[in-house]
Amino acid sequence: MRQNELFVKTRREAPKDEESINAQLLIRAGFVDKLMAGVYTFLPLGWRVFQKIENIIREEMEGLGGQEILMPSLQPKLNWEKTGRWDNYDSLFKFTSFYTKTEYAMGPTHEEIISPLLAKFVSSYKDLPKYVFQIQNKFRDEARAKSGLLRGREFFMKDLYSFHRDEADMEKYYEKAKKSYLRIFNKVGIGKFTYLTYASGGTFSKYSHEFQTITPAGEDMIYICDKCKIAINKEIINEQNSCPNCGNKNLREKKAIEVGNIFKLKTKYSAPFDLKYKDEAGIEKEVIMGCYGMGLNRLMGAIVEIFHDEKGIVWPESVAPYKVHLLSLGGKGNIKKFADKIYKNLQKSGTEVLYDNREASIGEKFNDADLIGLPHRLVVSEKTGNKIEVKKRVEEKTRLVNEKELLKII
Amino acid sequence: MRQNELFVKTRREAPKDEESINAQLLIRAGFVDKLMAGVYTFLPLGWRVFQKIENIIREEMEGLGGQEILMPSLQPKLNWEKTGRWDNYDSLFKFTSFYTKTEYAMGPTHEEIISPLLAKFVSSYKDLPKYVFQIQNKFRDEARAKSGLLRGREFFMKDLYSFHRDEADMEKYYEKAKKSYLRIFNKVGIGKFTYLTYASGGTFSKYSHEFQTITPAGEDMIYICDKCKIAINKEIINEQNSCPNCGNKNLREKKAIEVGNIFKLKTKYSAPFDLKYKDEAGIEKEVIMGCYGMGLNRLMGAIVEIFHDEKGIVWPESVAPYKVHLLSLGGKGNIKKFADKIYKNLQKSGTEVLYDNREASIGEKFNDADLIGLPHRLVVSEKTGNKIEVKKRVEEKTRLVNEKELLKII
Repeated sequence: MRQNELFVKTRREAPKDEESINAQLLIRAGFVDKLMAGVYTFLPLGWRVFQKIENIIREEMEGLGGQEILMPSLQPKLNWEKTGRWDNYDSLFKFTSFYTKTEYAMGPTHEEIISPLLAKFVSSYKDLPKYVFQIQNKFRDEARAKSGLLRGREFFMKDLYSFHRDEADMEKYYEKAKKSYLRIFNKVGIGKFTYLTYASGGTFSKYSHEFQTITPAGEDMIYICDKCKIAINKEIINEQNSCPNCGNKNLREKKAIEVGNIFKLKTKYSAPFDLKYKDEAGIEKEVIMGCYGMGLNRLMGAIVEIFHDEKGIVWPESVAPYKVHLLSLGGKGNIKKFADKIYKNLQKSGTEVLYDNREASIGEKFNDADLIGLPHRLVVSEKTGNKIEVKKRVEEKTRLVNEKELLKII
Repeated sequence: MRQNELFVKTRREAPKDEESINAQLLIRAGFVDKLMAGVYTFLPLGWRVFQKIENIIREEMEGLGGQEILMPSLQPKLNWEKTGRWDNYDSLFKFTSFYTKTEYAMGPTHEEIISPLLAKFVSSYKDLPKYVFQIQNKFRDEARAKSGLLRGREFFMKDLYSFHRDEADMEKYYEKAKKSYLRIFNKVGIGKFTYLTYASGGTFSKYSHEFQTITPAGEDMIYICDKCKIAINKEIINEQNSCPNCGNKNLREKKAIEVGNIFKLKTKYSAPFDLKYKDEAGIEKEVIMGCYGMGLNRLMGAIVEIFHDEKGIVWPESVAPYKVHLLSLGGKGNIKKFADKIYKNLQKSGTEVLYDNREASIGEKFNDADLIGLPHRLVVSEKTGNKIEVKKRVEEKTRLVNEKELLKII
């Protein structure tokens, strides 16, 4: 992408009401735009990051046998009444059609939709297990939205639902999903900072599990057991004050943000929607469900909270919008020509390049490159002659290479 | 995909309140599920079709220089007040946050968002032209939703917006976009049935243009000039009763569905949002806009309205969820083994295969294959021995080939 063609520019200032680091940097660097509190537009660079995160998640979900669908955001009141959540779900946006007087909810989650959907197709033990997921925008009427992409009123989630004949089968899948989640966090670069965290299981299960990423921007407090490399959340610490795995009481308190959660729903939603199957003996039983959520905006926000410095964002390579930022710095026509040639050759080799071909000062280009935070910076200038200066965003040291060496490195 | 793993099954009946052919077939064949009037879930096969249509559109938009973003569905009242549409847009879903008392609209279109967004980045003639698009779910409070995927309360649109320094530049781009639209309709298979249709341009332009696809399920009436291969809509025929191109009065009346529309917005939205630029002389001018919409659900519905017979859907190859339906028909274990082997080899060769490995009757499998409507049907049975019976969905004739020949054909 030639940077002068991008309709977005970097900005000196983020909106004054934007307190969070993730949104400040993402706005200044031109990845997102704030439409209003808790509601953001993904701009071209941000949309590329989003799609990379999305593809990493999708690949893992397919690896878990998940079949992708897309459910609506508009949801009928009746379904929410069946589960008793129409009046008890705190952050449900509700409204009424002017013409038909139909009452709708804007989906904050999809148990009320997926359960009756499966009930249309599942009748026998032969129809189980099944795994279904979607990646979709969700809506929540949050009382406060102050943490940028970490807590939005509109945001994207991946939600996977699993359907089983018994708890043993669900437990097995639940463990597989846990591992898949940890792989996702590793792949997007925050694995080292992310802990499987024991949370309350509600009335149906002793524990559910959250995935919490340590960052000072986090809204939750977690308690890490360094022996087991797991954590427990505040609710659990109030109950037991020790690691549920090893009993260790020497726990480290840390602020964290919940980037995923998984629940053993069991029959909580299959019961109200009559989601049943007949076993080998013809006896009707309720389907056992699990659900597995992950917030994509939140993941992007958490990545920025962790990977930034005073100059800007420092994207992990797996989710960077482009791998390389090529800067052509002033000078005569032959510098531009040389930079153009390198741009084309990198593109030919399949490298994702953002090419800063703008008429701008050297300082502005360097500052913008640091702010945008692509993993590799290449500079062509009068000083570099027929060589290219290569620098990693995470390192200070630069080196001069010729074009052949460049294509090998990148 | 092994069909026995799909969580969706074909159904004998569509919901009784479903009048439209497109939704009846898509529901019976397991492509979509009806959540309520005008609101559908895309099931795995339907989601694959959707993504193929989406990718065809995206490729064309990128070809037009479009930069992809994603704007929110939640939109602030203020923006809609600025254009006077808060009270005058017929099908706007509106609601109020319980906590903050903020009033929102659910986006049915995005002029109110994209115009102030561009105003943040455009200041000089050097910043123009720019082209920005998204593919996104939209919401409309329709008084009646009776045509299946042709008119929904929630649906996907691609919307492209272009920004120019003057009308001449906009006109040039508008003509390019027209051609791109016709290419899209050709690629998804409905080109022959789709007419560039002159419509009223509102107060700003003599004409706008719709793309109308002829089908008895259409809600609009168009008037085709067979000389120019264009059409005019009802509004225009009431004004002038002749082809705006050649004056021909011998027009054919046909029912049609609007699958796309393009407008010269000019300054209609740049004015209220102060979207201006400075020209070479430093004189401030309003940006000239164009917009280019296309409904994805509607496209899918229109394709089914056109390509079906009494047995089911007949997908064009470019948007079929899989290219090949492989049926293994009863018999002994070695038939299953042979079918398994063909399935694996087709997959290896990169062919998209739906493999009907279910325990089901021969009649059921044939009926389902016709209903689902993949372009090529392959049958392995005792009768075919070590050969494979090949049949196109659009033809009656079958032929027997060996595996080598098969891989060549497919």
